[in-house]
Amino acid sequence: MLKRVLAAAAVSGVALASPAGADDLMTKARQLFEPLPKTAPALPGNPSTPAKLDLGKKLFFEPRLSASHAISCNSCHNLGLGGADAEPTSIGHNWQRGGRNSPTVFNAAFNVAQFWDGRAKDLEEQAGGPMINPVEMASLESQVGEQLKGIPGYKAAFSDAFPGEADPVTKSNAQKAIAVFEATLITPDAPFDRFLNGDANALSASQKEGLALFMEKGCSDCHNGINIGGGRYAQFGAAIKPGVEYLPQSDKGRFAVTKDASDENVYKVPTLRNITLTAPYFHTGKVWDLRQAVQLMAASQLGEQITPGEIDKITDFLASLTGDQPQVSYPILPPNVASTPKPAL
Amino acid sequence: MLKRVLAAAAVSGVALASPAGADDLMTKARQLFEPLPKTAPALPGNPSTPAKLDLGKKLFFEPRLSASHAISCNSCHNLGLGGADAEPTSIGHNWQRGGRNSPTVFNAAFNVAQFWDGRAKDLEEQAGGPMINPVEMASLESQVGEQLKGIPGYKAAFSDAFPGEADPVTKSNAQKAIAVFEATLITPDAPFDRFLNGDANALSASQKEGLALFMEKGCSDCHNGINIGGGRYAQFGAAIKPGVEYLPQSDKGRFAVTKDASDENVYKVPTLRNITLTAPYFHTGKVWDLRQAVQLMAASQLGEQITPGEIDKITDFLASLTGDQPQVSYPILPPNVASTPKPAL
Repeated sequence: MLKRVLAAAAVSGVALASPAGADDLMTKARQLFEPLPKTAPALPGNPSTPAKLDLGKKLFFEPRLSASHAISCNSCHNLGLGGADAEPTSIGHNWQRGGRNSPTVFNAAFNVAQFWDGRAKDLEEQAGGPMINPVEMASLESQVGEQLKGIPGYKAAFSDAFPGEADPVTKSNAQKAIAVFEATLITPDAPFDRFLNGDANALSASQKEGLALFMEKGCSDCHNGINIGGGRYAQFGAAIKPGVEYLPQSDKGRFAVTKDASDENVYKVPTLRNITLTAPYFHTGKVWDLRQAVQLMAASQLGEQITPGEIDKITDFLASLTGDQPQVSYPILPPNVASTPKPAL
Repeated sequence: MLKRVLAAAAVSGVALASPAGADDLMTKARQLFEPLPKTAPALPGNPSTPAKLDLGKKLFFEPRLSASHAISCNSCHNLGLGGADAEPTSIGHNWQRGGRNSPTVFNAAFNVAQFWDGRAKDLEEQAGGPMINPVEMASLESQVGEQLKGIPGYKAAFSDAFPGEADPVTKSNAQKAIAVFEATLITPDAPFDRFLNGDANALSASQKEGLALFMEKGCSDCHNGINIGGGRYAQFGAAIKPGVEYLPQSDKGRFAVTKDASDENVYKVPTLRNITLTAPYFHTGKVWDLRQAVQLMAASQLGEQITPGEIDKITDFLASLTGDQPQVSYPILPPNVASTPKPAL
């Protein structure tokens, strides 16, 4: 993924020299971006089966994975709110606030890594983090499997999802199943996907101008590939450091993962797909207005003061990245029995 | 509803004198209980339309009805957990605990009134309570409509649901729409419904014995009608007062509504439908074991020490009250815009 993205960026650098006609625009865009598929991507080493997918959906909505039995994956990655939670930072156990804005789960399978700092290599690894993060779901590592074992209805569900395993009801298998479900949370057929697939009328005139600006100004140097972002890391404030309200010095970004000084203030470039659905923006969640976010990015990343008209057009283009939202039936969870471990009070 | 229930109870008093054969059992049961319909009941004065139902479903899952934007109706009336939340008492705003166990929303349309103390006359009135309860969703009365007006996608949804109204985006209309959706949350075709509908094999031998005991012991004096409960009020501890852990004296029950001394410790008799899915039990949520709940009810309400064998059979019968759970597709909620009111932090 990263390799392809970087190659695309190199192509972009060349293409930007020529003025953009209608066909040229589509040609250029196809060099930088890729439409979403209409079916879920396969996860290496974690094949999807109907049983695993069904289990993963249950677990995604399972509040008993949290110590309080009140917080599920869907609490912060709400399928009705663009796969995020419309909060600056999420509310976790005991009403603690998480450290960073909840990223959308939609299309996350296409990201180069997970979390703002990329500390999880894939969906499966990510899924295990919030369950045991003390400010999020706050379970203990050992409790997750015990909790699930204490709900008898999960026994058959895990056995069916992980056939042949002697002890399938485990946190690690829960992570696998959740990852398989999350990989289905894709949002194909956005106007921009239809444009990339050859429908020149899928974008309005203003959206096309916004797309041209998005490429010419250099937004697409980072926000490119299949997820229009999500493929690489970048330093927030590469051109001009934003104010501390947007870049508080208590958070060093990817530096916390790599301990490499060059990773200070470096974050995974977020996807811009469905961006109109997932305010507030940035890792702090401090910006609620997409136009302001565009302006701030132009200044901090590109050193450009863009005009209100340019902001309008780029924002119009960003609205073309909203695709078909996942249609998910609410799962019926297996009930507690008398011996099921109780929630923390 | 109440009238029918009381009439049925009177019939029961006569019928209990004779020994129960198989046909007798069905005949007697039909005098006391009623199967659920397979379609949602109509709500007086609040007709269902596709637009109102669709809006109501969105609002049921809408966390922005709460001050934090993190708590929705579904948080405490989880469609995957029998319409309740598997907590002793629910977690609300700022992690405060609610005063009483969250009752199931399933089949609630058939209850004589809403809340444990019956303080809301119907679903529509109930739906407005938690939104503005400071320990639950904690919005202000005036904020709910303003919040919804601040989400542009709701304008058309409310106009379609309430055609011809000049200002349809209001809290009271939200309550109407939610009520219409909640009326669809019924769980028909439980084994006991099939039995009442004439299928003598729908219950096991043990369940039939449990049903006979349920009627003979007097459980059905209160738990009867279409909801096997929900049709009347009763004093908790009518025969023998339970311990303060089950009947804390800080909660006087329906007395708080009527100020009538005879309503001290009086609560609405809860439905027993889907009771195996909705532990913990009682208004305190202090009992996690359904067998213990049966034993406690027999002692406190009927003054009877029932045997372990009787408890087994009655509990088996109660398991026959679990019906088809509602199949609901997760709604896509209209997104925030820059001017949408922000969550309380």
